[in-house]
This record gives sequence, C-alpha cells and structure tokens, in this order.
Amino acid sequence: MTETAETGANGAESLIRTLVAAGVDTCFANPGTSEMHFVVALDRVPEMRPVLGLFEGAVTGMADGYGRMAGKPAVTLLHLGSGLGNGIANLHNAKRANTPMVNIVGDHASYHLQWDTPLVSDIVGLARPVSAWVHRTESSRTVGADAARAVFAAQQAPGGIATLILPADTAWGPGAGAAPALPKPQPAAVSDAAVDEAVRLLRSGSRTVILTRGATLLERGLTALGRIAAASGAWLMCHQLSPRMQRGAGRTVVERVPYRAEDIVGIFKEVANLILVGTHPPVAPFAYPDYPSWCLPEGIAIHYLAQDHEDGVSALEAVAEALGAPRAPALLAASELPGRPAGELDQFSIGAIIARHMPEGTIVSDEAATNGLGPMQATRGAPPHEWLSNTGGAIGQGIPVATGAAVASPGRKVINLQADGSAMYTLQALWTQAREKLDCVTIIFSNRSYAILTVELGRVGARNPGPRALSMFDLGNPDIDWVGMARSLGVEASQAATVAEFEAQFIDAMARPGPRLIEAVI
Amino acid sequence: MTETAETGANGAESLIRTLVAAGVDTCFANPGTSEMHFVVALDRVPEMRPVLGLFEGAVTGMADGYGRMAGKPAVTLLHLGSGLGNGIANLHNAKRANTPMVNIVGDHASYHLQWDTPLVSDIVGLARPVSAWVHRTESSRTVGADAARAVFAAQQAPGGIATLILPADTAWGPGAGAAPALPKPQPAAVSDAAVDEAVRLLRSGSRTVILTRGATLLERGLTALGRIAAASGAWLMCHQLSPRMQRGAGRTVVERVPYRAEDIVGIFKEVANLILVGTHPPVAPFAYPDYPSWCLPEGIAIHYLAQDHEDGVSALEAVAEALGAPRAPALLAASELPGRPAGELDQFSIGAIIARHMPEGTIVSDEAATNGLGPMQATRGAPPHEWLSNTGGAIGQGIPVATGAAVASPGRKVINLQADGSAMYTLQALWTQAREKLDCVTIIFSNRSYAILTVELGRVGARNPGPRALSMFDLGNPDIDWVGMARSLGVEASQAATVAEFEAQFIDAMARPGPRLIEAVI
Repeated sequence: MTETAETGANGAESLIRTLVAAGVDTCFANPGTSEMHFVVALDRVPEMRPVLGLFEGAVTGMADGYGRMAGKPAVTLLHLGSGLGNGIANLHNAKRANTPMVNIVGDHASYHLQWDTPLVSDIVGLARPVSAWVHRTESSRTVGADAARAVFAAQQAPGGIATLILPADTAWGPGAGAAPALPKPQPAAVSDAAVDEAVRLLRSGSRTVILTRGATLLERGLTALGRIAAASGAWLMCHQLSPRMQRGAGRTVVERVPYRAEDIVGIFKEVANLILVGTHPPVAPFAYPDYPSWCLPEGIAIHYLAQDHEDGVSALEAVAEALGAPRAPALLAASELPGRPAGELDQFSIGAIIARHMPEGTIVSDEAATNGLGPMQATRGAPPHEWLSNTGGAIGQGIPVATGAAVASPGRKVINLQADGSAMYTLQALWTQAREKLDCVTIIFSNRSYAILTVELGRVGARNPGPRALSMFDLGNPDIDWVGMARSLGVEASQAATVAEFEAQFIDAMARPGPRLIEAVI
Repeated sequence: MTETAETGANGAESLIRTLVAAGVDTCFANPGTSEMHFVVALDRVPEMRPVLGLFEGAVTGMADGYGRMAGKPAVTLLHLGSGLGNGIANLHNAKRANTPMVNIVGDHASYHLQWDTPLVSDIVGLARPVSAWVHRTESSRTVGADAARAVFAAQQAPGGIATLILPADTAWGPGAGAAPALPKPQPAAVSDAAVDEAVRLLRSGSRTVILTRGATLLERGLTALGRIAAASGAWLMCHQLSPRMQRGAGRTVVERVPYRAEDIVGIFKEVANLILVGTHPPVAPFAYPDYPSWCLPEGIAIHYLAQDHEDGVSALEAVAEALGAPRAPALLAASELPGRPAGELDQFSIGAIIARHMPEGTIVSDEAATNGLGPMQATRGAPPHEWLSNTGGAIGQGIPVATGAAVASPGRKVINLQADGSAMYTLQALWTQAREKLDCVTIIFSNRSYAILTVELGRVGARNPGPRALSMFDLGNPDIDWVGMARSLGVEASQAATVAEFEAQFIDAMARPGPRLIEAVI
C-alpha cells in the first residue's frame, strides 16, 4: 500500500480512518503532547467530528451520554495516565451504564518510558478497573487493527469500555491504512429453558415481579413488558439507576426500585417470584448498621431470564408469545399533565412546570439526587421522552451526559436536572455546550448543601453530628453563584426563586435553542 | 479499655485520634456516605482541622501544597474508588513531588461488597499507581494501628503517598483508641565512598555540574551548595520541576535545567562530570522524532552522591567540609529588583511587577506553563521567597497547591501563577480559598489557548495542522470570563489588560489579605 494521506500515512491517521470505517465518528477530546499527531489527523479525515472538553471528567461523561443515545461508541482522546485518571469517575459511571466507548490514551514513545520522565505513570493499571478491554499498541502498523478490535470490544453485549493505549511513536510511525471494521457483535440468545421457566412462574398465580435494566426499557422491550403484564398481571420494575429509559404518555409504566432498603423490603415482602432481565436482585445501595443489605424475603424464587450479555428484549417477546399475550400492552401511561403549580419553588412545583412545557422527544439527564423524585413523578404522563440516570453513583455525571446526549441527538431538547454539589465536579462541560451551541437546559437545584449526606448521616448511625461535621455537608459560606458561573463559561443563565420566575424562565428556555442554565433556589 | 468518646469509642474516632497523635492535624475532605463516621468524629477531636474541597482533585492538590510547606503529611478523606479517581492526577503530581500524604478512602462495609452495588470498584487497583503504600483495613480494632503505619509510610524518605482504605464497618465498629505514633523515619546516610567520589570529581579540574532536587533546595542544602561552588567552581543546577525551592536575594542561585532537549544538550556538551543529589540525569520531557531523549554527552562521568531516599543535605555538607570550603557560599543572588516596566502586559512585565511588590516570605505556586519564565527571571533578586512547581506534569495543580500551602503557612502571602487552560481542571479550590479566607492571590495568564500544545505541535513533527486541529488548542469561542468565575465562587476578582492596570491591582492585592484573583489578559 502506498503511504499517502489517502491511505493512512501514519499510525495516527490509520486510527482515525479505522474508527470512521467502524462507524465511530465522534471524538470527545482533551489532548496533550502525546496526542498531537492524532489531533492533526482529524483534519485529514473530515468524517470524524472532534468535540473539545476542558477537563477529562467532562470528556468521558460526554462520551457516556453520547453512547447511551447513539447506541454506538464515541471515542475519547485522553493525555497519559493523569488524563485518564481525571476521567475515571465518569468512566466508572459509564461502565455501570454498559455504555459502549473507546478511549484512546496517548503515552510517551515506547523508547522514552525508560527515562521515567515526570508524566510517566502506570496507564494500564489505571485503565483496568474501569475498562472491559485494555490494550497497549506496540507498532504504528497495528494501530488500525487494534482500533478495530477496540470498537468490537466496546460493542460486545451489553456494551463496555475499551481502552487503547497508543505510545506517541505508534502515532508518528508508518501506518497500515484503515483496518476493516469487525462485524458488530450481537447479544447471546436466551435458552428456551430460561423462557419456559419465566412462563411457568408467570402462570403460577403467585405475585411475580419482572425486574429489568438496559435495552428492555426502550420501545420494543417496553411493549413486550406491557404485553406480559396484560397476560399475567406481573409487576414491572426496573433498576433504580437505569442508563436509558423511554417513558411518558402511551408507554408502558415500569416502576423504579426505591433507594431505601426498608422500602425495597416493603415492596417485595409479598412477592413470590422475581424474574430478572439484564440485572440482579435489588439490594441496599450502601450498608447501614440498622438495615439489611439483602432486601428480599426468604423463599422468593429468583430466575434470570436474561443475563446482561444476553438478548433480553427477544426473550421478553418470546415470553409474551408463549403466554399468548394480547398485542396491546397493559400499564400504559395516560397522557396527563399536572396542574399549574402554586406555592413554594421545590422539586414538585419544578417537576410540574417541566412536565407541562417540555416538548415530545426531550432527553432528561437526571442527577438531581435528593430532588429527583418530583420531576420523575410529574412527567409520568408527559409527552414521550427519555430518562438518563446516574448509573454508578459517582457524582459529576449530569452535565457531561446531557452534553454528550445533545451531541448525539440534534433537534432534540436536553434537560439536565442537576444537584448543585454534584454540578461542581464537571462544570467544565458547560463550556462545551456553549462552544458547540448545544440545546441543553441545565436546572440547578440550588440547596447549597450535600443534602443526600445529611440524609445518610442518620442512616449510617452517625449520631449527634457537631458543627464541624455539618460544615462538611454545607456548600454555603460562600454560596456558589450559578448564574455567574454559567455566564463565565459562555452559557446564558438566570436565577429563579419563585414558581412564577421559574415558570417564565423555563418556558423561555423551551422556546429557544440552548444552551441555558436556570438556578432554582430551593 | 473502656470504650468512651475519650478513648476512641469506634474505629473512626481511633483513626482521627491516631493521626493527631502522630502530628497529622489537617484533613482535606470531600466525604460521602461511607465516610460519615469519620466526619462525625471530627467534632470529638478538635485538634484535627477539617478543610472542605468541592472536588477531589482540589483536595489531593491541597494536601500536596500543604505537605510541601509543612514538611509533614496532611490527611485526605475521599469517597470510594470514584473519589480517589478524581484525585489521581494531583496524587500523581504529589508522588512526583515526594510529598508526604495520607489518603483515607472510605469503602462499603466489608460484608456489602459481595452485592456489587453501583459504587463498588477496585479501589486497591486505582490506588496502587499513585501510592507508595496501600493497605485495606479488615477490622475496626486495627484502624488506629493501620493509620499509624500509614503516617510512617508517608514519611519514609523522600516522602510518599500512603493510601489506607477503610470499609464503613471499620468506622462504626468498636475501636481500640489512639494507636501510638511510630518513630519518624529518617533518610539513610550517604556512604563515605560516595562523598569521596564527589570530592574527587570536584577536584578533577574538569567542568562539573551538581544537579539536585528535593530538600537540598532549602536553606541548609543551598548553603552547602554555595560553599561547594566557592571551593570548586562547580555549576549548580536543579531539576526543572522541583517541589519546593527557596530563592531570592542572599540565597545561593541554582539554575533550573531547561525544558527543551536541545537546550539541555547545549548546556551539558562541555560538562565532564555530573553529580546527582536526589535526582536523575536530565532528559527531554517527551520524546520527539527530531530530538534526543537522552541529552548528555558521551563519556560524561555520572555519580550519584545521594539517591532520593538518602540524606543529600548532610552529604553536601560533608563534601563541603572535605573540600575545605569557605563558610561563605558563592553564587548568592544580589538584592536587585527589575525596573518599573512599560510596554505590553506580558509575562515579563508581570514578572517585574510581582518582583517589585511581593513581600518577603511569599510562596509562589507556579503553574504558569508557557508564561513561567518571566516571573522566574524577574524574581531572582527579589526578597527571599519559595517556589513550588508542578512536579508531575499533570495540569490542574497550581490553584490547589496554592490553597494547601496557604493552609500550612498562615501569615504568608501565596501567589499562584496560573495558566488559564490548566486552571480549568481544579478551579473548585478557589471556593475553598474563599471559605477558609486564605491569603492567596491567583494570577490567571489568560491567553485563551493551550499555548504549550501549539509549541509542542511542531516539535513532535505534526506538520500542517488544519483548522480543526488548531481548534483543539483554542480556549476561545467562548472566552472564559475568569473574573466572573472567581466571583461566582466567592473570590474577589479583577481584570487587567495593561501594565498600569495590572500594577494597580497587584499592589492592592499585596496590601490586603486574600483571596483575590487577577485575570491578566495577554
């Protein structure tokens, strides 16, 4: 092969061309010296869209939001171990979301590592805990082939993180052109025996819960779930932290497992059978001295209809057919909006205003923490929309996921329900929203505290906190001015302290393209 | 022992009491649910000062700045693997600085991990690449003893990071009170043979460079270096990224090794002998296709007088004595200030203004990147001060290190020379400056670009960057408003676009206690 710009003159160019050939065409980047050649190659391959983030935690969170909505990987471009390190918390969240993602981490040239220069670190060691697949390329001629394998690995069901470490000399050395894409891996089929057992439990006449997570919460899976409910009376539930869920008027209602252990115990105490699709039995999120971690009653029958690498959607459809379920699903949400709220500005009045004014097709990035219940409840019968949760519990996910979802979904409104404490971790993504002119509306629930920690304090049995302990959960002194913060990053912003103010600002935000931030003082 | 609040009723309290007994009395914290008991214990042990950071990268950077100035560890309090992850980049820098530091990372209760709940991750795996010592406590009764070992490990010469992982049940289970402090470890003595060889080289009559890093750049080491120079004519140099350096009028001048490989080659081409104290031969920071990584001439004699775990200061004093060096050091900087600058606002005029107005005892946290040379040169003869560099190359270190240094050094002015791109990574530390009313002055070199990357671009041989590549180094579109940003976090701020404006604002900042931020538009 002649080494020209067209065929992949160097390793860097073969990387970008291989990714594009495999359908990966969006790059969230925070590059450094080791990644210069990859950056320059971006201009030679116009099919790849680069999106700059000013901090790697924003970059990996954006790739997560993108991957959830696009259903295919974005690629990140990260600088060495410290750049990867900054991205780890949102890689953890993305790993828990089963989001397909390819990380490209530049490293020093292979022959340079021996000098242990300041930025040398154990990149493989840092990558392992957050990656399903890690590889370090040894030659510029295999960069393309390795990248094709990374895309394959990222798409293995249910989706995962593939981290490819590329020493600088594999970028500037001679490439071998674009490697052909590997076939997209498919989820494994569920056995007939697993389907039969689910059918037996659903026909047993005992109270049965179907608990799901993942692709089952999109259109096809929801329809199958609603048909099964119509045929069997099963309760439909989903994991508390589901990566992506379609909901709203006309869609099958699937209840979230609650957060508190005692509430899970309460729901499940009369349940005889639990059918799992792409998830595990519900447990308490943390251990507490006075509450159980395991929340299910003795004697409950637990059946894995589909593990998370299996095709849970087809399995549910097979169950529905075997049950002779009607074509029409049960448990569909009625189209119904809450009344115009009065009274205090709080999560419930904010939820009502959002539900009344958000357009069909809205994508919600939910990191509202203690203020998430109101918007979730209010939007049950709102126009059809999608809900993206914080999946791994690492805070700082809401703004970047909203940003990445917007990149993946032009023409759709993205609403980010954002706790103030969590927003501080990755606020850099607001700048990317401004640069890329993304249609994101961030709603900061500004309660000036790590409110969830004051809840948790009592639950873990830490009694009688003194003033110094309480000061560790207090974000006041000084108060953060979210309007000033957003404007400093180029995002239009306003503050609302009353229902009337919030309503006017939210209606305005829905009427015009974003980005926009509303600080709701609650 | 009766388990009362006084004797360490639970594991959490035994931790805090043990740390205080070992002289560790400052805690930089960003806690979560797993760390609640440690937080509550803070009120029972008033000797421990808690300092809240709103992002873990700020927390670990603050502990780095504190440890460099205090010469003893601070403790960090981090939430699980994701909290540790957010702190990794500045832990990398602290590791390269040999800063003593103890990380306390809370984990789920030991019996809860089996449920693989959302926040479960491989904390040990994430800690290893950035820690000299990692331990996971198994019982609440050993928390104290493990903490004492952690403090010991952090203080082993030349200083390092000890990470102690504490499952939540080791916090709330019964403690064993405060464990006694272990004796503070001392650096190893240098052999007579190593001293003799250094003396032989210094007497050889050939050009000899003494290259140092670490404690040798403080008072005692500087005096010994200056005496050796007086006796032998040796050149004195230091590592480009030294954690802490005392300098200014009346102190021995030690030149920094330059950044560029070709400049290192130029300096060393006539050098016959290289004596190393706490560091390694100088190399290029990155590999470049057209420049060498190894920069020393063939045949140069390289002698390790002291490895970094050895007592380099005493070794230098022994060399000075053996040489019969005079008491008075050579190469002392004259007390001399630059003239009042005119012309453009740039790193040189800014440096002159800083030098002319900063008080004696100022601590400089230098993350100015491409704008660092001007201030460094201008302050050579300024009142005695200290200089803290970015030691590991991971950007986002300047603001937190300044913050932690200020916590460690009440009554002293801290000036943070801060590149704008790097500032975006850990700007949350500004909020801590405001909360703790720290006397920090941040000078943002606002050039709206990752300027160092445009320098590196050509050096790595990435030719003809197109507009998309260049956009990856451009922080404009939108411009970041640093004044608005700082104010939103409670820090007084102003913008200077001319020499006159900067001079007036800097004089004002020196006259009053901080925190304060000046955005220098250059």
